[in-house]
Amino acid sequence: MTDDTLTAPRRSGRRARLAQRAAPPVVNPAPPGQLGGAYKPLTDPELSAIYATALRLLEHLGMGEVPDRLAAVLLAAGARQMPGARISIPPALVGDAIAAAPRTFTLHGRDPARSITVGGRAVHFGTGGAAVQALDLETQRYRASTLRDLHDFTRLQDTLTNISWFTRCCIATDVPDEYALDVNTAYALMKNTTKPVATAFTLAENVAPIVEMFDITAGGKGEFAKRPFVKAHISPVISPMRYGEDAVDVVFECIAHNIPISCITAAQAGATAPATLAGFLAQSLAETLASLVMVHAIRPGYPMVFSNWPLVIDLRTGAFAGGGGEIAVLNAASAQLSNWLGLVSGVACSMTDAKAIDAQYGAEKGITSLAAALAGGNLIYESSGMTASLLGASFEGFILDNEMHSATYRALRGIEVSDENLGYEAICAAVLGEGHFLGGAQTLQAMERDYVYPALADRENPRTWADNGASDAWGRARMRAQEILAKHHPTYLSPEQDAAIRKAFTIL
Amino acid sequence: MTDDTLTAPRRSGRRARLAQRAAPPVVNPAPPGQLGGAYKPLTDPELSAIYATALRLLEHLGMGEVPDRLAAVLLAAGARQMPGARISIPPALVGDAIAAAPRTFTLHGRDPARSITVGGRAVHFGTGGAAVQALDLETQRYRASTLRDLHDFTRLQDTLTNISWFTRCCIATDVPDEYALDVNTAYALMKNTTKPVATAFTLAENVAPIVEMFDITAGGKGEFAKRPFVKAHISPVISPMRYGEDAVDVVFECIAHNIPISCITAAQAGATAPATLAGFLAQSLAETLASLVMVHAIRPGYPMVFSNWPLVIDLRTGAFAGGGGEIAVLNAASAQLSNWLGLVSGVACSMTDAKAIDAQYGAEKGITSLAAALAGGNLIYESSGMTASLLGASFEGFILDNEMHSATYRALRGIEVSDENLGYEAICAAVLGEGHFLGGAQTLQAMERDYVYPALADRENPRTWADNGASDAWGRARMRAQEILAKHHPTYLSPEQDAAIRKAFTIL
Repeated sequence: MTDDTLTAPRRSGRRARLAQRAAPPVVNPAPPGQLGGAYKPLTDPELSAIYATALRLLEHLGMGEVPDRLAAVLLAAGARQMPGARISIPPALVGDAIAAAPRTFTLHGRDPARSITVGGRAVHFGTGGAAVQALDLETQRYRASTLRDLHDFTRLQDTLTNISWFTRCCIATDVPDEYALDVNTAYALMKNTTKPVATAFTLAENVAPIVEMFDITAGGKGEFAKRPFVKAHISPVISPMRYGEDAVDVVFECIAHNIPISCITAAQAGATAPATLAGFLAQSLAETLASLVMVHAIRPGYPMVFSNWPLVIDLRTGAFAGGGGEIAVLNAASAQLSNWLGLVSGVACSMTDAKAIDAQYGAEKGITSLAAALAGGNLIYESSGMTASLLGASFEGFILDNEMHSATYRALRGIEVSDENLGYEAICAAVLGEGHFLGGAQTLQAMERDYVYPALADRENPRTWADNGASDAWGRARMRAQEILAKHHPTYLSPEQDAAIRKAFTIL
Repeated sequence: MTDDTLTAPRRSGRRARLAQRAAPPVVNPAPPGQLGGAYKPLTDPELSAIYATALRLLEHLGMGEVPDRLAAVLLAAGARQMPGARISIPPALVGDAIAAAPRTFTLHGRDPARSITVGGRAVHFGTGGAAVQALDLETQRYRASTLRDLHDFTRLQDTLTNISWFTRCCIATDVPDEYALDVNTAYALMKNTTKPVATAFTLAENVAPIVEMFDITAGGKGEFAKRPFVKAHISPVISPMRYGEDAVDVVFECIAHNIPISCITAAQAGATAPATLAGFLAQSLAETLASLVMVHAIRPGYPMVFSNWPLVIDLRTGAFAGGGGEIAVLNAASAQLSNWLGLVSGVACSMTDAKAIDAQYGAEKGITSLAAALAGGNLIYESSGMTASLLGASFEGFILDNEMHSATYRALRGIEVSDENLGYEAICAAVLGEGHFLGGAQTLQAMERDYVYPALADRENPRTWADNGASDAWGRARMRAQEILAKHHPTYLSPEQDAAIRKAFTIL
């Protein structure tokens, strides 16, 4: 089921002569996976200078607080113990890790038709995040997010075609026990969607039992590892320049179970990383490379999303702020850097600081998501449904962001320049013939093949808009979200699978 | 007076340790005129192919409906009469016109400190448009726009620093007489702002008398022409591929009075130009080049903004739609094409189809304006205050767009990569010292020099937002617009100038 199948046909009574063309085109003119890279915020010498500084940091400053288990594999791979407790990662080892990393890999959906190939110049929007509040559909106010919200968000996004993978977007704050939280989060993902999904593991010992749940879902013991449809989000590096033991343990455990991982560096400018943008990028690149080297030392060539997410704080309050121009250019530059190194890039964009679903929400998301996409971010995390500087998640936001991504993908698709599309003869024929292009064969073909027709955006004239109740996007999205949530109750687990899971786990 | 001077100091009681840093920085970290061009939607061979097709159209299809007066100067410059009524513009003449066109020129403000240099890679946002409706501040509904609105919009934008020039954004629909309309529009511009301004002339015979008003404002007869602070918006080409006689007459008259001109091609995809994007760009480039050749034939080297504005209609209704991804990439490509030819580029972006000041408004403006800016559009028209597919103008929109442009300019500014900004030593010192970057000298300097702190955007946490009334951007912008309109009553005409104008003209 896709969002298109839920869309009522558009009425178009106003211009009868165009009525026969009013149906939405059958072909999606701008599906996910469009190619980025036409925007290059950094020049080649600038890329080299940032990379050189990152290498220098890794070699001469090194990484701190390296757990013993990790130190052993790093040293075996070519890292060196420094005086004191730090470990030096020499350029040759970084080069080995980059060379061994896969340029592209597949993130499997349980439905193979929903799998995506990530890397290269392909751009996909998806979710990340761990909001602790949900914007309530009824009250339009924030409240603590619940397990029920997580189920609802998961089944809502299941219908939204521009969200290529789903990470649990909010925390079920009504599930205080950490193991129960990890289990019930995984269950919500299994039950409500067949897209590629992602989750986080609070502790390494939670991984093995939850993989049992994935095996039940996949059809038997060991089946999940053959075609893993869940990836793990892990932050094994704590800025500045040290490892975090619990997260490193989760990395070891995920690799043992063949769970692809997204290693996220989430430094904050002026707090855990330099406030100068170039210095920030050098440090956070070094840190994400430290994650890559770790993964390489454990298992060379393992699929890892290189998630270098530069974050910004507002000087006036010290709080994280996700919607500014700095974060747009920093994440675009991060994507460019990762892609230039041949790595699969993850960035965080289409964030906003707005609480209301308003013009600030739209502008901040529009600017940050377009910048990251044009720069070629392979996986654009936090791109859908997130609000309130990542503290909140919104049903209406999912609906609106999904539609916004169509415009971004359409811009990314660019302009196909060919003799046929230049159409010299067709222009001459129109000018010397009817004097316009309306109704021509080339026009009709292009209109159906090349143009996005939004389902929710208001394109009426002011009078019609007022006569129809002067709606705004928030209200239209609310109605749409309620409509989908009332109708779409997927059951992607068979009764037998569900019973087996409930036998092995406490499903709340 | 700028918007900053009207801004109340921000409170920041929540984190006392940061209180001393809470004042807005004195330096504007991202003023207008930032450099674009890092986004290149077209490759070099694609640029060449589109230009070659434009040249072929101009030479072999030629321009239709050429007024006799224009035909004479074109033929004298090297154009050729074709069989039938069309005139061929050969590539050599196009090349002459491009070579003679100034690469940059100054748009003068009456206040010289507000003059801007346009061209090269510099990006400026400003207004265009001829809305016939205003979004009423009191009722939040659209109504016919009036002369009073025009005065109010002009004095409002006078305080907004990211709007580099002001074109009358709405039509005073309560002034039905065309001459009275042109006169009173010009008067509103003279009275309420000292930025570079622009207007349109309904008929050529209106130019000379209105220049008399400009002369009174400039200090005496002939003074305006020495340092013209008004440019004219003219559409001398009617798509597809013919001239329009009235507008051509206005061009002759403006050049005679040394009024810089923006020659606007506003073809619509699938109606007056091909629906295929490449063909559209080829035709509209040819048409804008036809304007340039016209100006060149009248007076070589005359300052003309090369305004190639690709517009899109919605297939389902046939109505113009300004907010889609197609219009983002088309206008970005137009800017790239014009800049590649060395011409001063004008595009139309930051348009929206939304009527409400909502999330659709924000996302459409964010995406289209960032695309045009990153591509290096020198003059980005329609960028501020316009709504409703250019049918409407909004006071709240002016406030919000002005703030949004700060984020775009911040992204455009990019990342300065230098040894100092990479800060290898500073990173080592922080990591081996306090373990963070808070409060460091480099941090404080960068925070004040490199980061934009929005005045209106909501960056509070959800609870504070709710406690403070759960505001949205529309409401905050409304209060701000009302505050400015209540306070800012500029009188940029002396009593003597005002009296002289009122003696010569009927000022309503």
